[in-house]
Amino acid sequence: MNRLWHNARLMTLEGRDLGIVEDGAVACEGGIVTYVGPRAGAPNAAETIDCEGRWVSPGLIDCHTHLVYAGNRAREFELRLEGASYEEIARAGGGIVSTMKATRAASEDDLVAASLSRLDALIAEGVTTVEIKSGYGLSLEAERRQLRAARRLGEERNVAVTTTFLGAHALPPEFSDRDAYVAHICDVMLPTLAAEGLVDAVDAFCEGIGFSPDQVARVFEAARTLGLPVKLHAEQLSDLGGASLAARYSALSADHLEHLSEIGIAAMAASGTVAVLLPGAFYFTREEKRPPVAALRAHGVPMALATDCNPGTSPLTSPLLAMNMAATLFRLTVDECIAGFTREAARALGRGDIGTLVPGKTCDLAIWDIGEPAELVYRMGFNPLHARIWRGQ
Amino acid sequence: MNRLWHNARLMTLEGRDLGIVEDGAVACEGGIVTYVGPRAGAPNAAETIDCEGRWVSPGLIDCHTHLVYAGNRAREFELRLEGASYEEIARAGGGIVSTMKATRAASEDDLVAASLSRLDALIAEGVTTVEIKSGYGLSLEAERRQLRAARRLGEERNVAVTTTFLGAHALPPEFSDRDAYVAHICDVMLPTLAAEGLVDAVDAFCEGIGFSPDQVARVFEAARTLGLPVKLHAEQLSDLGGASLAARYSALSADHLEHLSEIGIAAMAASGTVAVLLPGAFYFTREEKRPPVAALRAHGVPMALATDCNPGTSPLTSPLLAMNMAATLFRLTVDECIAGFTREAARALGRGDIGTLVPGKTCDLAIWDIGEPAELVYRMGFNPLHARIWRGQ
Ligand SMILES: [Zn+2]
Ligand SMILES: [Zn+2]
Repeated sequence: MNRLWHNARLMTLEGRDLGIVEDGAVACEGGIVTYVGPRAGAPNAAETIDCEGRWVSPGLIDCHTHLVYAGNRAREFELRLEGASYEEIARAGGGIVSTMKATRAASEDDLVAASLSRLDALIAEGVTTVEIKSGYGLSLEAERRQLRAARRLGEERNVAVTTTFLGAHALPPEFSDRDAYVAHICDVMLPTLAAEGLVDAVDAFCEGIGFSPDQVARVFEAARTLGLPVKLHAEQLSDLGGASLAARYSALSADHLEHLSEIGIAAMAASGTVAVLLPGAFYFTREEKRPPVAALRAHGVPMALATDCNPGTSPLTSPLLAMNMAATLFRLTVDECIAGFTREAARALGRGDIGTLVPGKTCDLAIWDIGEPAELVYRMGFNPLHARIWRGQ
Repeated sequence: MNRLWHNARLMTLEGRDLGIVEDGAVACEGGIVTYVGPRAGAPNAAETIDCEGRWVSPGLIDCHTHLVYAGNRAREFELRLEGASYEEIARAGGGIVSTMKATRAASEDDLVAASLSRLDALIAEGVTTVEIKSGYGLSLEAERRQLRAARRLGEERNVAVTTTFLGAHALPPEFSDRDAYVAHICDVMLPTLAAEGLVDAVDAFCEGIGFSPDQVARVFEAARTLGLPVKLHAEQLSDLGGASLAARYSALSADHLEHLSEIGIAAMAASGTVAVLLPGAFYFTREEKRPPVAALRAHGVPMALATDCNPGTSPLTSPLLAMNMAATLFRLTVDECIAGFTREAARALGRGDIGTLVPGKTCDLAIWDIGEPAELVYRMGFNPLHARIWRGQ
């Protein structure tokens, strides 16, 4: 059925800024946008929806989450309040490993049930597409269960889920040798899960407490063999040259990037790799080094934003709060914040079919009770979403 | 009618910590708590509510807000993103004055309508009592309208509103002389509004860009004459000795306190003045100096928390996010964060009838879908409120 939303102020996100159209309209048929522009030129439609002057943007895209897990790290939070660092907690057997144990002990149904409230919080703020990583299972069986739970979430709710295999997140206790685990990832886990249709992209954690650039390169080679795109947790705690490595493999994105060097920036600019900034993790871990936003801007590297929703370093389920943090803590402009959860987030997922309001794209909309776009970024702990449209519905 | 909530894990906040009672029950009659303790000893009741093992705390108290105003400062936010400081914006005629103009132009109905969505956001996170300041009207008429709108909000919703007169917030354009405006406050505005029953407490903004300690002392003298308690915006941007001044007048609270000195802390400890910490404003204005939490703790000064909801420096309507910020940015413990929005917030309002679960107090409850109290503080942009009870209903 064709539908028309009219009497709307549009943020189309077409071009380099917000692409504002006053007194605009959006038409769709079969879930695909057929018209975006002034109301005066809009086609007729079987159903018309009066937006009463509200702002309409593309549905939000959360392009970096670890949404599917079991267990609770509130106690670790209390430990950190008493002064323990992220690395100290990791070395003490807390951190990722504690979530791994809880996730391994959970059934697929348990994982879906535990994750739905987090997904619902994202949806309530206008998210229509969410990326979900594995990486708390760290065995073939448990990674499969996590990825299947992620796919199930997309069936339980009107939201598109894209999955990322993050086997190279931490070393599981079955392995004492990181190289041996990487070989297991490349030879067994990734090919098996990819063959089962569970993997849309491949990610790794390139860090002193994670995996070395050489090990990451092996994972990326395996992904390339399977024709899967890659992304990378890079330069979060130190500069190991992860962004340059990612760029060499034409990665969709390099994520975090607080310790990114000029060399890494230039490499990302040349390869078109998106910088995914994660201010929730920066804030929550009390990181002091900010990602080099001005240099990324100067080099024309696209910047996306995401919640990084995860139990250890960013228990955040609010894209709007992530925007405020990106503005307040990283000094992104309002336009950059909104583009970061729409146009640039789509780019970070390699998705040409979402993220802007243009004929031919999927009709995912967020309709907002705001007077101007800056209000989405400015307020804290407030949700002005009026309605969310997913695939035209 | 008498009611009993059972099968609950209680945070009574009695004593110095969370006052946890496992497998507990709360009974009330006529809106007043009649029993708090183990389920086994609970009285019978006409209506029993099974909390299914959920946590129950006192209803939250937001003890410092500027909730009632008109207009929008999202554009000023964009300006600040481009590098202007809070003081520069104030000197450029932005800041408080821009909100004053919008608030003066609004009717009482307009103010109620504009403020309800903010109040509803607080209520949705379990707030049962909220303090609301005037201070954007800055004339007798406009301050009256603000305070009447605040009282009206308490009639529109099931929430208790306590009002604070903050005429000494900024200099209105009708006055070129701060002393003359302070005289007008003391001789006309405050006595008139107090006689109309609109003033529960009196506050002032003691700062280089606000009012001097001498001027504040005159306002406090006027309050004392009328038998009204006082509180003070003190030591937010600099140390003018505001906390010591507040302590001399036995103020209920001194608020902000980033630049508080040892002398001020000792004075507050001696007078029993509560330190109200406002991490939302600290975060939003990118303040770098933290309030002296360790010294406040060492001197036994009670610490409350609040949203400071206001359009210029803390457009925050989430008590839970304020708790997370207090933990993350100020290193308050989980217990201190929860006490800061319950027991200590009640103390900051001079209210012995709310803030803890004890027989004889008002039956204001928040019932939470959490596994442990730390989850209230740990998560960001997530609301686990299951139900809110106001005066037993
Ligand atoms: Zn991540
Ligand atoms: Zn204030």
